[in-house]
This record gives sequence, structure tokens and C-alpha cells, in this order.
Amino acid sequence: MASTRERMVVSTVLLVREQGARATSIDDVLAHSGAPRGSVYHHFPGGRQQLLSEAIDYAGEFVAARIETATDALEMFDVLHHDYREQLLRTDFRAGCPVVAVAIEAGDSESDLHEHAGAAFGRWQELLEQRLVAQGVKAARARELAGLAIASIEGALVMARARRDTEPLDNVHRQLRTLLRVELNDGSPA
Amino acid sequence: MASTRERMVVSTVLLVREQGARATSIDDVLAHSGAPRGSVYHHFPGGRQQLLSEAIDYAGEFVAARIETATDALEMFDVLHHDYREQLLRTDFRAGCPVVAVAIEAGDSESDLHEHAGAAFGRWQELLEQRLVAQGVKAARARELAGLAIASIEGALVMARARRDTEPLDNVHRQLRTLLRVELNDGSPA
Repeated sequence: MASTRERMVVSTVLLVREQGARATSIDDVLAHSGAPRGSVYHHFPGGRQQLLSEAIDYAGEFVAARIETATDALEMFDVLHHDYREQLLRTDFRAGCPVVAVAIEAGDSESDLHEHAGAAFGRWQELLEQRLVAQGVKAARARELAGLAIASIEGALVMARARRDTEPLDNVHRQLRTLLRVELNDGSPA
Repeated sequence: MASTRERMVVSTVLLVREQGARATSIDDVLAHSGAPRGSVYHHFPGGRQQLLSEAIDYAGEFVAARIETATDALEMFDVLHHDYREQLLRTDFRAGCPVVAVAIEAGDSESDLHEHAGAAFGRWQELLEQRLVAQGVKAARARELAGLAIASIEGALVMARARRDTEPLDNVHRQLRTLLRVELNDGSPA
């Protein structure tokens, strides 16, 4: 069973991906996780900022661990598409990417939340890039393609939520899959 | 000079693209626009929801009018990239796309804001699609490419804000430009 600490972090992720970071209060997290009030400053002495940044790190690692299970770059992209798609359908299009939700509200220059969001995107991009390189794509090209893949799937997830339709996500999946396949064949010795 | 009504809509757009829809209150809009309090229910009897949905429609039309000035599909995409890039640099990476900001907070099923966000994305995609068709790309292919272009630039804008770096946006611009150019040459009679 998850610790109180972990339950609070997971609740924060689930709330932020539906309603955004600014709208998510400590009270919401306590109500959602069932944690006692005292646990906030016990586990998160930095308060709401610490809870939010740990939630983003957690979400970043969760997705990274999911895509790392893939055997190759194409399957990595399939996993990303599959997971976001299922999440949209399961939540009636309410749940998007918590990292995007934080990134777009990170206008406050006092906050370092945008750095956590940037690190999560960077980690996913790097994993895809490394896999492409391992499959024979040149480093610079792998980096460009991985950047395009992450950007397009994240943008499509936002469009899919707005339209209440998975089509934008499915389209980007098909387009990037074709692009990656061409690139992987060009890079192969055959 | 802009009317009080228009100033209020523009203020809403400017606030939402920096801080998100939920964090933007009627008081913020009054302070930013300098409009008197009475103007809210005079001009926007539907209150905050009406103000937000008109702001999204305004932003949608503003971008549509900008890209319609382009002479061809490639230039359309150049304009999108240029405008978002300038906006990031001018605001120290605080200002993103107001339509994305609304779309990711549109979890509330009572609200029709997501429909306005979906319509704005749809309009931009359609303009790009029509231009591609006019330049000889088949309708189904034009639709796919336009969807990928809008998704990837919107996703890259979010990543650029998180990283405080225009690189994700510049990369997507280069990748999509190459892709569109290949497609346009394939479609040409030459």
C-alpha cells in the first residue's frame, strides 16, 4: 500500500492533469488523498510549491518508466499514444498531461515549476532520441525527430481534449509513425 | 480607439495566455483594461464565462487573420512560428497560446469553453489545409498535415515556455517546413 506521502503526490498529479496547477489547492489534495492536514508540513515543508514540483517529477518519471518498457523507438511512440488515448477515453476527455498544465501556468518568475516541467519533457525526448540512435539514426537527426514527436503528441492531446475526440492524437500518431519508420529504414544497413 | 467592450476582451486574452483561464478573475480584467465595474454586466450579461468564450473567439480570429495574410502554406506556417516566437521573447517566456490555456482547464462539463477552443484550433487547421489543397496537395493528405502542423507548433510552444528557450519551437518549424516542402513538390505538376 502506498505511503501517505506517495498518495498525496499521486493525488496532486491526478488533480493537476484535470484542472491545472493554479486551481489545485492543498485542501483539494487532502480531500482527494484522505491524508490528515498535519501531513502537509510534515512531508512537504516547502508547502504547495514542493508538492507541485514533486508531482511533476513523479509524472515525468512515471511516463519515462512506461516508455522505457518499449523494445524500440516506434513502440515507445505507440505507448505514449496508447496511454494518453486511454486516459482521455477513461476520463471523458477531462485528463490531459500534468506537465503541460504546469508549464502553461508557470508564468510566475518566483517559481521554479517550469524547470521541473522542462526536465520532464527533456527526459522523454532524450529516451526516444537514445532509442533512435541505438537503431542507427544519426544523433542530430534523432534529436530533431524526438523533439517533434514529443511536441506533436502533447499539442494533439490538448486539441483532442478541446474537441472531445481522439482524432488529433490518432492523426499525429500515424504521421509520426510513418516519419520514424522511413527514418529507421534509411538508417538501417539493409 | 478600442471600445470598452473590446478592451475588456483583449485584456482577457492577454491575462489568460499568461496565467490560464481559472486564475483570471473579473477583477483582474477590470484592473487590466481600466474598464468600470458596471461594464461587466452591461457588455457581458453572461459574466465570466461569456467574457472567456469571447476572448477565445477573439484570439482564434486574430491568429486566423494573421495567417490568412500569407501567400502560401509554407508562409502560413512561418507566420505562426514567427508570431509565437516573438511573443515568447517579448514576454520573457510568460505568454503562450490562450486557446491552449482554456482547453486544458476545460474539464468542467458545465462549461462550453472547450467548444470555443476546439473551434479556434479547427479554424487554423482548416485555413492551412485549404491553402495546401489550393497548392495541389490531395484533400485527405492536406488535412493530416495541417493537423500535425497545428498540434506540433502548439506542443512546442508549451515546451519552449517550460525550457525558457525557443529551440523546441524552432525545431518544429524546421521539421514541418521540410515536410510541407516535400509534399508541395510531390503535388506539383513539375
